[in-house]
Amino acid sequence: MAKELKDLTKRADNYSQWYNDLVVKADLAEQSPVRGCMIIKPYGFAIWEKMKEQLDKMFKETGAQNAYFPLLIPKSFLSREAEHVKGFAKECAVVTHYRLKSSEDGCSVEVDPAARLDEELVIRPTSETIIWNTYKNWIHSWRDLPIMCNQWCNVMRWEMRTRPFLRTSEFLWQEGHTAHATREEAEEEAKKMLHVYAKFAEEWMAVPVVQGVKSETERFAGALDTYTIEAMMQDGKALQSGTSHFLGQNFAKSFDVTYLNKDNKPEYVWATSWGVSTRLMGALIMVHSDDNGLVLPPKLAPIQVVIIPITKGADQLQAINAKLQPVIDRLRDMGISVKYDDADNKRPGFKFADYELKGVPVRLVMGGRDLEDNTIEIMRRDTLEKESVSFDGIAERVEGLLEDIQKNLLEKAKNYRDAHVYECDNYEEFKERIKDGGFYLCHWDGTPETEAKIKEDTQATIRCVPFAYEQTPGVDMVSGKPAKCRVIIARSY
Amino acid sequence: MAKELKDLTKRADNYSQWYNDLVVKADLAEQSPVRGCMIIKPYGFAIWEKMKEQLDKMFKETGAQNAYFPLLIPKSFLSREAEHVKGFAKECAVVTHYRLKSSEDGCSVEVDPAARLDEELVIRPTSETIIWNTYKNWIHSWRDLPIMCNQWCNVMRWEMRTRPFLRTSEFLWQEGHTAHATREEAEEEAKKMLHVYAKFAEEWMAVPVVQGVKSETERFAGALDTYTIEAMMQDGKALQSGTSHFLGQNFAKSFDVTYLNKDNKPEYVWATSWGVSTRLMGALIMVHSDDNGLVLPPKLAPIQVVIIPITKGADQLQAINAKLQPVIDRLRDMGISVKYDDADNKRPGFKFADYELKGVPVRLVMGGRDLEDNTIEIMRRDTLEKESVSFDGIAERVEGLLEDIQKNLLEKAKNYRDAHVYECDNYEEFKERIKDGGFYLCHWDGTPETEAKIKEDTQATIRCVPFAYEQTPGVDMVSGKPAKCRVIIARSY
Repeated sequence: MAKELKDLTKRADNYSQWYNDLVVKADLAEQSPVRGCMIIKPYGFAIWEKMKEQLDKMFKETGAQNAYFPLLIPKSFLSREAEHVKGFAKECAVVTHYRLKSSEDGCSVEVDPAARLDEELVIRPTSETIIWNTYKNWIHSWRDLPIMCNQWCNVMRWEMRTRPFLRTSEFLWQEGHTAHATREEAEEEAKKMLHVYAKFAEEWMAVPVVQGVKSETERFAGALDTYTIEAMMQDGKALQSGTSHFLGQNFAKSFDVTYLNKDNKPEYVWATSWGVSTRLMGALIMVHSDDNGLVLPPKLAPIQVVIIPITKGADQLQAINAKLQPVIDRLRDMGISVKYDDADNKRPGFKFADYELKGVPVRLVMGGRDLEDNTIEIMRRDTLEKESVSFDGIAERVEGLLEDIQKNLLEKAKNYRDAHVYECDNYEEFKERIKDGGFYLCHWDGTPETEAKIKEDTQATIRCVPFAYEQTPGVDMVSGKPAKCRVIIARSY
Repeated sequence: MAKELKDLTKRADNYSQWYNDLVVKADLAEQSPVRGCMIIKPYGFAIWEKMKEQLDKMFKETGAQNAYFPLLIPKSFLSREAEHVKGFAKECAVVTHYRLKSSEDGCSVEVDPAARLDEELVIRPTSETIIWNTYKNWIHSWRDLPIMCNQWCNVMRWEMRTRPFLRTSEFLWQEGHTAHATREEAEEEAKKMLHVYAKFAEEWMAVPVVQGVKSETERFAGALDTYTIEAMMQDGKALQSGTSHFLGQNFAKSFDVTYLNKDNKPEYVWATSWGVSTRLMGALIMVHSDDNGLVLPPKLAPIQVVIIPITKGADQLQAINAKLQPVIDRLRDMGISVKYDDADNKRPGFKFADYELKGVPVRLVMGGRDLEDNTIEIMRRDTLEKESVSFDGIAERVEGLLEDIQKNLLEKAKNYRDAHVYECDNYEEFKERIKDGGFYLCHWDGTPETEAKIKEDTQATIRCVPFAYEQTPGVDMVSGKPAKCRVIIARSY
């Protein structure tokens, strides 16, 4: 067994450590010398690229266009929207100088005090302010609307406690920023993009999500409403995996963005913004993977099939190579990414463990016996089941299996999730049970006081008011006051 | 005629102003409130996306993999390679603080002096230092080599004079960083990537380039050799459009990156880096465009064909729509991007001028007469020639025309370039003629003194020693000393 695999912490022993181990051992990412910033390694980045490609396509199908806005934002821009600055000022990286100079001993460089900026610039924590400052010049009449721009970029939020993918000071994301003539249109856009995220999570990541609306406390800084998709990890904790915001006219007012309506009267523009980030990688890893390593849904796996020959001597290798080559070609023609690993410096057992660790969905192995019998061994990573099957029609069998794995992962995750969603009406019971994780559907009186008490007592937070849940009024389990609806409460990442 | 077009400066009047106008009027980019940083608008970004997509494919075909390294680099990293820090320290944006706080009057935010970083961080001007610091952990034995990573990202170099795409403080680029076991392999990689750039420039941008090696003065800070592709703009000036660097063992030594060779002995690793940036957009614009606006090569045009109906009344519009729809579908099936513009709030003349300004390669127009005659008007943007042709087989005709335009643009640019490359042996003559632009092939004695004198006298610089030029020894036109080869001298952007 590969050394890497032996050292992987078991989920049951320490789920959090298992995750940290896995990110490093599966070659997804590593810490950098800059506090809280990670290096995304080629294998991890290849997964992110596949996510990006599909999301980008889905965004464009809604009419969004990509653009690029500056990394640096004048400090004063942040202050223009009062809630926004409250939310982000405390975690801004600030550029104060634009030049270094040699130190007196000539051995190092130091900040050149003569090159101080008149106004400090912050590295974007998000781009509403610079974008709405720009939209002011783009929007004049109702004919200029809607505007739907997206950008794929890096952002920086100086976090005190960081974890790879889940919470890093610098992260990669996309941020969509749209401008609309009416409130209705903007609200519809925010909901539409949430549905796009949910569809992507389920169909591509095989991660089922709960869609809903955040409480006021949990809203994006500057939003009137924040919509969210919440996924459940294998420890029963929630991971907020994507959000879209109905921003009302807040940013239009702060940056004085008006348009002339059809009656030639000026009105403030309505806004949304929406984003997903490399955090999705965290969800992908935590939902499916196991004690042997990553488990990747085929649609996002950089390598979908690995083929390993086990041979004695060069003649047999040559015969197996010749037998396998048409299958490799056939699979690639089908658009399936194949790695043929005939490297002779690693033992089969090492390779098996390594590709399991990396989550390759299907493994084919051919040995001398298979060659004689016209068979091949096929293993699926999701269940670790393996069987010896006929070599004939193997490509089609692999194709079918990949589809099956994709479906099975979603179903498995859905079953797990559904088995850990509970209605709960008693606070004492809740406090006991929340320790084991899970999503709790509880009546809430709508006050921040109750919300704060739950958080203080249990570290759990209101994740959202779920859309797809038949609501009935009831009684808040904490305050005993009347409650209009149930919310989902959970501990979260 | 559209107002935008009327205001476009003519190339002959002021080439530089024409360029600045065009970037804004064609909706490619605009200035941002942050000094020297631009906003890339959706139309401009769509061109850049097409460039990225093709380049990325070509890089991956060479075996490169994408990854992501941190935006911020510890100040001390820069100092590790002596030449490198000299080259970049003077233009670094420096992060000194990680938090803002409310000002005393509560109306704005200011830097929180309590949140000063122990060590300042610079926004990457390029990533050799942070990447070689990382490679140290990735490389142990010859089996780990080569490593070929690329990243698409933003970088920042604080420039005093900026121009959209050509020189901006923040720009988008890709930077490849490779690590090799031998000097030969690294040199070969640097040259290979230069050829990839040249191929891309010619086949996709329709921009012919001269490939060559830079003089020592013009080398990348920290390189042993810098290879370059140089394109000629319509004013005869050179634009350095891409570079690849053979870095020797400089960064391996600075960051102590060694590997065990096959004899189990430690050796320093050999390095290259290579990059192209949004500067390519500048080359694309300046090489092909004319006084009517952008001229885009079909392979990079976001809209390849625009179709405009000219109608009187709703019935005729309906008939024309019905006639055109199958052609639109057919073109899209062929993978051609089509815009059908039947908006009724703009006059045809405005639309014509606008799509010319935006460089759409082919325009089709159908009016009532065409409907009766089964004809359609077709115009090609590169020559502005239009003709009335049979409607039958129009999709195939458009497809052929797009290929023809792509070829014609390259040929035209090649002819222009070739007509403005001169051998020159007399310095007085050179000083006169360089005022009119052009590439001058002159013997050079190889000294920085001569190079400096030429620059001082004429603002022209040595662009490169071209690879594809049959060299004969001669006499330096400035110093009268013996010279081994001719170099290309030109004024440049």
